[in-house]
Amino acid sequence: MNGAHALLQTLADAGIEVCFTNPGTSEMHFVAALDSEPRMRAVLALFEGVATGAADGYARMAGKPAATLLHLGCGLGNGLANLHNARKGKVPVVNIVGDHASYHTQYDAQLQSDIETVARNVSPGFVRTSATTAQLGQDAVAAVQAAHGLPGQVATLILPADVSWGEGGQPCAMPARRPAPVADDAVVRAIAQVIAQANQTGGKTALLLGGQTLREPGLLAAARIAAHAGVKLLAEVFPTRLARGAGLPPVERIAYLAEMAGVQLADIQHLILVDAKAPVSFFAYPGKPSNLVPDNCTVHTLATPEQDAPASLAKLAAALGADQAQPQLQALQRPGRPRGKLTAPKVCKAVGHLLPENAILIDEAITSGLMLGAMTAGCPRHDLITLTGGAIGQGLPNAVGAAVACPERPVVALIGDGAAMYTLQALWSMARENLHVVSIIFNNASYSVLNVELERVGAGSGGDKARAQLDLDHPRLNFARLAQGMGVHAVRTDSAEDFTKALGYALATPGPHLIEALVPESLNGAKRRVLPWLLRSLPNLPKPLAQALKRKIAP
Amino acid sequence: MNGAHALLQTLADAGIEVCFTNPGTSEMHFVAALDSEPRMRAVLALFEGVATGAADGYARMAGKPAATLLHLGCGLGNGLANLHNARKGKVPVVNIVGDHASYHTQYDAQLQSDIETVARNVSPGFVRTSATTAQLGQDAVAAVQAAHGLPGQVATLILPADVSWGEGGQPCAMPARRPAPVADDAVVRAIAQVIAQANQTGGKTALLLGGQTLREPGLLAAARIAAHAGVKLLAEVFPTRLARGAGLPPVERIAYLAEMAGVQLADIQHLILVDAKAPVSFFAYPGKPSNLVPDNCTVHTLATPEQDAPASLAKLAAALGADQAQPQLQALQRPGRPRGKLTAPKVCKAVGHLLPENAILIDEAITSGLMLGAMTAGCPRHDLITLTGGAIGQGLPNAVGAAVACPERPVVALIGDGAAMYTLQALWSMARENLHVVSIIFNNASYSVLNVELERVGAGSGGDKARAQLDLDHPRLNFARLAQGMGVHAVRTDSAEDFTKALGYALATPGPHLIEALVPESLNGAKRRVLPWLLRSLPNLPKPLAQALKRKIAP
Repeated sequence: MNGAHALLQTLADAGIEVCFTNPGTSEMHFVAALDSEPRMRAVLALFEGVATGAADGYARMAGKPAATLLHLGCGLGNGLANLHNARKGKVPVVNIVGDHASYHTQYDAQLQSDIETVARNVSPGFVRTSATTAQLGQDAVAAVQAAHGLPGQVATLILPADVSWGEGGQPCAMPARRPAPVADDAVVRAIAQVIAQANQTGGKTALLLGGQTLREPGLLAAARIAAHAGVKLLAEVFPTRLARGAGLPPVERIAYLAEMAGVQLADIQHLILVDAKAPVSFFAYPGKPSNLVPDNCTVHTLATPEQDAPASLAKLAAALGADQAQPQLQALQRPGRPRGKLTAPKVCKAVGHLLPENAILIDEAITSGLMLGAMTAGCPRHDLITLTGGAIGQGLPNAVGAAVACPERPVVALIGDGAAMYTLQALWSMARENLHVVSIIFNNASYSVLNVELERVGAGSGGDKARAQLDLDHPRLNFARLAQGMGVHAVRTDSAEDFTKALGYALATPGPHLIEALVPESLNGAKRRVLPWLLRSLPNLPKPLAQALKRKIAP
Repeated sequence: MNGAHALLQTLADAGIEVCFTNPGTSEMHFVAALDSEPRMRAVLALFEGVATGAADGYARMAGKPAATLLHLGCGLGNGLANLHNARKGKVPVVNIVGDHASYHTQYDAQLQSDIETVARNVSPGFVRTSATTAQLGQDAVAAVQAAHGLPGQVATLILPADVSWGEGGQPCAMPARRPAPVADDAVVRAIAQVIAQANQTGGKTALLLGGQTLREPGLLAAARIAAHAGVKLLAEVFPTRLARGAGLPPVERIAYLAEMAGVQLADIQHLILVDAKAPVSFFAYPGKPSNLVPDNCTVHTLATPEQDAPASLAKLAAALGADQAQPQLQALQRPGRPRGKLTAPKVCKAVGHLLPENAILIDEAITSGLMLGAMTAGCPRHDLITLTGGAIGQGLPNAVGAAVACPERPVVALIGDGAAMYTLQALWSMARENLHVVSIIFNNASYSVLNVELERVGAGSGGDKARAQLDLDHPRLNFARLAQGMGVHAVRTDSAEDFTKALGYALATPGPHLIEALVPESLNGAKRRVLPWLLRSLPNLPKPLAQALKRKIAP
């Protein structure tokens, strides 16, 4: 059997069921071999960033990696941004990157580049060029093992064309996965003591939850600890996947704006990391600290990303005697139906009004989605996927992958107009695969967040040329037409009633839909007073904290 | 003055007039400084691949670099594919890549990555992270010098946010450019002798022209040598920029298919490289050679890309006594108006029928454009831009840059449907800048070239799953709607008459237009006999050679 057949059989044996593809000549033997491996589904993307973002979204929901099939260094280059997001989210992805035949690289042909270097940033833990057809199966096993370890990571296997077409391929079996270690007894004991002591003396302690802890088992264990010992629950700012809604413990996400995060963390004396990093500012701002941990706060680590964090939380709960404590759970509570002229908060309200049980909610609406957290907090239980690496263009490809992973669950993706334009080709894959995705595009004709950032970095409010760089008007995009051009049913509206009706229809009708929400630029008139404006639309913070913030920051 | 102001002033002083931008927070000070530098035009792109491809197209036509403004490693990643094309075309580009403030990188925030590594492949000659605001001006001078040397290259200057916002910036002046060296006397003498000897003995010699030689001065010098000494003129397969049409010497481009290139080169005993590489196969194919130089052919180098190749050709012409020879020039000769159901060759015929003098023709129609060379050979003089690095998605962004560089020249871009979808966001920049670009999209609903390649690599004709990976149907894209969604006037047709009318209107009406040509998949029914089919539509080869090919290859 040739290398391509052996590779596909090895991947399928390892449980990989989907490959998101954008192939070229050097991958033709892999493509030809697809028909011999019925266990592998191939989903074509029209741009590599869609393929990599889909693999990311798939793995977040399936809990195991998909493969990508990319064309040499340039194809991988086009996929880098979403692989960066996967890496930052600790999401497993197995890249298969075709290369020239090994004897051809010496000629420096047009598409020649150093693929290993291109892969280095996103795949620091595993980049390998398969040297022989006989070894390819073993290389594939190593790639899947690397990707699907704890933490998950992006593994890149480079496949020279002659290794793919050569004979003598050997499918290989995956060894069983080793269970991940749980936090040491001594660590658990020490942290339990810190919590108990602080609880007695009135000191404030918080668990900062990230990665694997943000699904039901981890959240329940954490919420028992919170109920038992007065510990605050915080979640990292951009979770890979957060289980939330009625019946689950609510957690407060750290805010994107460092100013707000500073207030959230101000009184914390002990911050306990559980599969999470100590909080830092997303960007640097002149004169403001990058490290958001207050000076008088001690940081402890219960579990690293290499450990079984949910089990470590359960162990901590047991050590505290909290394992029978009654966790606080979110009540079912939806907002009403929005009315009148459409605004970004009304879009979020309509989503909260209608979101079905078990939906997958994807949030890449940087400013327009600010109310999404508050408006959907009491919806039936659902999963939330967020922009883990800050590289916009993640949301629509993620929706493709999530829908492939969970065909029975509706996917609702809220995307800003700026972000949508990076990887809009995802809509075509939704149409081709007939995926039940409702893409909601906020069209405010602006890189709205940059209007905030322009001031926050102290660069003033900008002259005409500067402002033109943040402005998506002239001409205003028409996302409904763009969607129709890719075969996706689409509606465009500036009325809250029509939006809600369109959303209801889309949720009830299988297949892809796009709803373009024409909304005013959220920050109009508030640009000079960003923080007070944000306070009024605080998404994640409970009321007392919002009021404390207001007292502290607002003029 | 802060770093950003000093940088912009330095760039403008160095003659850089345009910056193609897709900024984020870390570039806000650069953006804010734009209003203080009236000599710098900022052109916003909605995706970084558009910005880098536009900078490439700009430099090909302006003969000097533009800058790009990109957002950290992920923004640069999105721009890599078109930077690869620029690198392979030896095109000068100056990337300004914003980074986190230098003190912020230690915190590994969401967007943190190693930008120098991302840049390494496309910018092997110049990657520098500016260390201090005081040095930034000098760093910018060094970047422009590196980019605009001979050969041109991609230079990447990484700009930490604190270097940009810091005070103490010093604008720096560019030293004068040093003239490039001409080929040594001894080299010229030796090659003249080879040519003269071969001419006497009936041996066959060819000049392989690349890079700088494919504009009028180089072409004229080469054509004088050809006329005087019976030398054949060949051009590299994918020229960066080729001057052609009535009144200019015609050259035969090396064919993309190695089988055909082999025939073109079969009888050559001496191949003389002039700013060109010895020909190699684009991809490797089982059992076929990668090196296309015949065994009994000697390769000589008249001028490297580091030398002044047109002047070296003139020197060779003088050494041969050919400097007064009458070069063969292309006669004015257009094809007629196409009729009936639209096909890809008819699209090319309509372009040949109407192409205005001084047009800029961009060819990224991999299979559908096969007749373009033949159909436009006798058009009024124009420039042709081709896909230098093989990374598809170059054409539409190139058109943006070419139109910005040459506002008085119409740009006609022929793009395959597959290629168009990589960087379709270029249409929005065309609309925003009101550029006179006519984008012609061949919609044959297929990655047509891959149907050829699937067979050529010996992978058979593929089963259902394999063929689905090469198929852009289900759903069929509607490029007219996609263009309208980005504010570009668009027409969709399958009639040759309507297509020709739409093209005439678009050429006569300033501003951007898109014409979607619905054409049959060019290779239907011919898939099992690719070479004979190609012979029938041979674009660049003169009749006698085509007939020789037919005798040699066709069954």
